[in-house]
Amino acid sequence: MRLGVLGGGQLGWMLALEAKRMGMSVFVLEEDTKAPACRVADRCFKKSELEIFKKTCDRITVEFEYLEEDILDYLEDKLFPDVSVLKLKKSRVMEKEFLSSRGYPVASFKKCKKHELLKALEGNLPAIIKTDSYGYDGRGQWKVKTIQDLKIESIPDVPLIVESLIDFEFEFSILGVRSQSGLKKTYPATINYHKDGILLYNHSIEEDFKEAKEIVLSLLEELNVVGLLSVEFFSKKTPIINELAPRPHNSAHFTLDGCFCSQFENLLRAIFDLPLGLSELKLPSGMVNIIGVVPDFRKILKLDWAKLYWYGKEPRPLRKLGHVNLVAKDYERLKDYINLTLGAIYESS
Amino acid sequence: MRLGVLGGGQLGWMLALEAKRMGMSVFVLEEDTKAPACRVADRCFKKSELEIFKKTCDRITVEFEYLEEDILDYLEDKLFPDVSVLKLKKSRVMEKEFLSSRGYPVASFKKCKKHELLKALEGNLPAIIKTDSYGYDGRGQWKVKTIQDLKIESIPDVPLIVESLIDFEFEFSILGVRSQSGLKKTYPATINYHKDGILLYNHSIEEDFKEAKEIVLSLLEELNVVGLLSVEFFSKKTPIINELAPRPHNSAHFTLDGCFCSQFENLLRAIFDLPLGLSELKLPSGMVNIIGVVPDFRKILKLDWAKLYWYGKEPRPLRKLGHVNLVAKDYERLKDYINLTLGAIYESS
Repeated sequence: MRLGVLGGGQLGWMLALEAKRMGMSVFVLEEDTKAPACRVADRCFKKSELEIFKKTCDRITVEFEYLEEDILDYLEDKLFPDVSVLKLKKSRVMEKEFLSSRGYPVASFKKCKKHELLKALEGNLPAIIKTDSYGYDGRGQWKVKTIQDLKIESIPDVPLIVESLIDFEFEFSILGVRSQSGLKKTYPATINYHKDGILLYNHSIEEDFKEAKEIVLSLLEELNVVGLLSVEFFSKKTPIINELAPRPHNSAHFTLDGCFCSQFENLLRAIFDLPLGLSELKLPSGMVNIIGVVPDFRKILKLDWAKLYWYGKEPRPLRKLGHVNLVAKDYERLKDYINLTLGAIYESS
Repeated sequence: MRLGVLGGGQLGWMLALEAKRMGMSVFVLEEDTKAPACRVADRCFKKSELEIFKKTCDRITVEFEYLEEDILDYLEDKLFPDVSVLKLKKSRVMEKEFLSSRGYPVASFKKCKKHELLKALEGNLPAIIKTDSYGYDGRGQWKVKTIQDLKIESIPDVPLIVESLIDFEFEFSILGVRSQSGLKKTYPATINYHKDGILLYNHSIEEDFKEAKEIVLSLLEELNVVGLLSVEFFSKKTPIINELAPRPHNSAHFTLDGCFCSQFENLLRAIFDLPLGLSELKLPSGMVNIIGVVPDFRKILKLDWAKLYWYGKEPRPLRKLGHVNLVAKDYERLKDYINLTLGAIYESS
């Protein structure tokens, strides 16, 4: 089986490692030959080699949504998930319009242009302004509590969306997977903790989140997803969907060590139409991201239960450079493990 | 950190996958560029490139003991474990002489040449005749219960060892690891089941095997091992050592999914003098080898808890082509998982 991956980042890198374990060949479409996935792929192709890339692969998937539409269209017959799912993800407005039109719970929102911003905020404060496209890891987002908070000069003149700010208890994610023959499963929910708009750490939780899981299963079906769908929720009395991602997701990295079958393996099983793997937890699990710092690895590895993933990327502020997966015999220990790991990474030596 | 691996087989392949996860670069010395480890290494070197291979690597380890001594000697200052440990392993007689001279429990043995065989067997039956060198996976071994069993023409004219056959209850393995600064640990014992002299499957067990673990810790120290030492025991009233292997071992593949830190990661930690990882079980675990057959992968993956490792080697009778790791919430389930996996691999479809 010959897997093609669009994008060479850490998601593609972990997908490649899992694919290689199962005996697959891996081909990556990526301009930067030093990207993580290129260092483990059988071959890395540039966009100029798109035709031969397509010929080389049996099935192709994505690790990054923001790809040129003509590339997605050209690869369509080998591409999972479907181009329509990927296109939806390119616009927050389209995503929200789809969700609300089908009756899924989302925050109220308004699309607008920069010059319409003041009007759009009227009566909708506190709110969050987001760019319609290319928003991830906290990029292109501005919280506005009162009209005085608005620093209009820092907002680009691009299509925008204004969402009313949800007063939630916590944020949680549920990952779903659906195979070509329509088998589907959800992973255990994780509670997510952010810093500067970027996921800092997350962990599994004993609660079941049945209602949210039903939403994920229904979305998998309705969007006809073949592959993964990560859904981020705000926890209110009923869960509210924050956003979707039709690909492997940072909030499910814990599945590599904490679950019987990882998100990456289940993506492979889904797109090659194999039976799906068990998404259950082996034991309570969590993950801590290494963001913007090169830690003292010895300090991390001294935590003898810590499982280090280091992506080999050039360090830059706010860049995800690696993560540590944690598995513990009980939830009390898991909490300690997370705190000790945060300390080992972020407390200056 | 730049890792060198002598040998490109599946042990080197799994070591490379674990090293890559931790952000290391991997270089393999192997003539066959299609070998499993070469397909995931940053670069594969031939013996003719030994000098540049050595220069490229920070530390070097082995996945195969039977290497030319001049190569081991040339690499000595970067090589772990020490050349002396590797040389010991090249001769069963030397291994047994070392063990018995230090008071470790081994079967009684005699070294002999082919023409001395009848005399060596006298009064020592039932026995097992083994070639002094290159014996693994049941190669170079002949069981002799009565003198009539001896098919002298099938035995090569090479140095031999005659060992008295031990009437044991079961065979078990314990893997030890020791770091450059002398930290050491053992892994949980596994019970091993063979077919045609090759490990077919194994699994963890609730019993602790304290006496055998003490032997492994003592051997790690006495041999000054930096890296892994797998010790195979026959279970009698007191355990008897069958053989040693100073490298990753098939009987510890289960550690990749069943333990907090795998044998491969702990080998890396040991040779790079990092703190050792937790060798404890997450949950009851086992492994089934895929030997000589290309199974129907769909049948294996239908077992949704099965974790497939496929080495990508040319199929040949009696060749280890892959394995399936199993983790279960309890020992009863683990037993079922092993039987179902054996069925999925070996029962003709």
